[in-house]
Amino acid sequence: MDIVVVGSVGLDTVETPFDRRGDVLGGAASYACAAASRFACTGLVGVVGEDFPAAADGCLRGFGIDLRGLERRAGRTFRWSGVYEDDCVNRRTLRTELGVFESFNPVLPSAYRSPKCLLLGNIGPELQLRVLEQVRDVPFVALDTMDLWIRTAADALHEVVGRVTLLTVNDAEARFLTGRHNLLDCADKLLAMGPRFVVIKKGEHGSLLFGAEGVRIIPAYPVRGLVDPTGAGDVFAGAALGFLAGGGCMGWDKLAEALLHGSVAASFAVEAFGLEGLAPLDRAAIDGRLRALRAMAV
Amino acid sequence: MDIVVVGSVGLDTVETPFDRRGDVLGGAASYACAAASRFACTGLVGVVGEDFPAAADGCLRGFGIDLRGLERRAGRTFRWSGVYEDDCVNRRTLRTELGVFESFNPVLPSAYRSPKCLLLGNIGPELQLRVLEQVRDVPFVALDTMDLWIRTAADALHEVVGRVTLLTVNDAEARFLTGRHNLLDCADKLLAMGPRFVVIKKGEHGSLLFGAEGVRIIPAYPVRGLVDPTGAGDVFAGAALGFLAGGGCMGWDKLAEALLHGSVAASFAVEAFGLEGLAPLDRAAIDGRLRALRAMAV
Repeated sequence: MDIVVVGSVGLDTVETPFDRRGDVLGGAASYACAAASRFACTGLVGVVGEDFPAAADGCLRGFGIDLRGLERRAGRTFRWSGVYEDDCVNRRTLRTELGVFESFNPVLPSAYRSPKCLLLGNIGPELQLRVLEQVRDVPFVALDTMDLWIRTAADALHEVVGRVTLLTVNDAEARFLTGRHNLLDCADKLLAMGPRFVVIKKGEHGSLLFGAEGVRIIPAYPVRGLVDPTGAGDVFAGAALGFLAGGGCMGWDKLAEALLHGSVAASFAVEAFGLEGLAPLDRAAIDGRLRALRAMAV
Repeated sequence: MDIVVVGSVGLDTVETPFDRRGDVLGGAASYACAAASRFACTGLVGVVGEDFPAAADGCLRGFGIDLRGLERRAGRTFRWSGVYEDDCVNRRTLRTELGVFESFNPVLPSAYRSPKCLLLGNIGPELQLRVLEQVRDVPFVALDTMDLWIRTAADALHEVVGRVTLLTVNDAEARFLTGRHNLLDCADKLLAMGPRFVVIKKGEHGSLLFGAEGVRIIPAYPVRGLVDPTGAGDVFAGAALGFLAGGGCMGWDKLAEALLHGSVAASFAVEAFGLEGLAPLDRAAIDGRLRALRAMAV
């Protein structure tokens, strides 16, 4: 396996200013795997309930995602519902139903234990540590987290952050995690926690990559037909990791290039609900927008 | 004169989360001229009262700004006071005292009537039109405006927008002016009003340049020691126009390069109160940050 992604697989009910969809296949791992699968052989570690629709299963398989790590258990699949404000950026969670995800205990199939890249999606840091115990010789481990874990599992969070190659957070989380406002200061404090690289995501404004090498400004691809921003950050990380796993070197310049691929993949993802925007996506489509994005950048 | 700037000159009282300063030399024209003067011979058209301090006058002269267009009149100088929130981005106006600025009637000295670039700062659109009547053969006219004029002088605003080369607005103003949310849609509607180019400013997130040629993403220079963001947009525009006026061609690529110079100049300006951050600035300092910014960009 080139890349293994651990995280949530669920059914989302999403309301935007323009439309509403119920029980759309979602979850961080679904989005990240669908994007990563465009670049590299991708395995998913997650859990779904007995109500997980055959169509959703078929959708994941249609991306070519390896599902040996997707556990099916008695009970309900994880569900999330939320409503976006008029800006189609800020959102309010209406309801979260953990279902079988509540007792998720990630177990990696033997074929998943030495991937080139491992993406630890936003699950509890204790679970993320349990995943790290099951792998060996992984050249690149990326971690996504959120403010909830700072309040409920700060020690485990610090431990896992100290053991990864790349930490990705959004700007609000970076500020909450560090208690600083300036993003350069936030990045310094996050890098001091151990990861070699830190990416701070700013949604439509792009992202910033930080490391001992300095700072790189990663632009977002300007999207005209925004439909549903759900999962954009997961697609961004999944595509970037997939690109890294598909290539050779995993250094600074290559990571910046990978993140640019992530920006482009995310721009397709937000143009439709769920994984629909990613389904028709091939390398030619990605490379087309990549060239356009590079031409837009100064 | 290479560049002429018309706009406010005032005394600001600014409170940030870190510090407070009273009666600091400010106003859009002061900021824009101080930045433009780094690149080209710059003339200021504005008005101050009899209380305008000799030190403030000396400060403007110290930048090498031509003040033949700065009228001195009986009465008080324009004053603004505001307080920034903890993010040092959002701000609240505490008090605006127009003073002699209320009856400002811009009259251009004869030496100012055919500059290479004219920057119409954020004053009433009727006054901006009066300035346009006084100039001839100006290759590049830039216009800054704000939402206030849409409510109070929509017809004049539309007329002046239709007569300029470049319109600069911030993202909130672009949305208010057009009634659209997506910035690509906003830009389409603004371009349809007549200007050849539109720049939408997004503060610390940089800006976007739009024209028939397409879109350019202009990054902001990441600033660690933010002290006072007042005037950043004016410095951005002033430096960009100064750069344009100092060179030859004024086309798409040159304008993108000019805006990058604007980003860099603004990064210096926000590191101190008022014009202090611009005072020690020379081309070597600007070029240093410009190289760093280009290296950060993908």
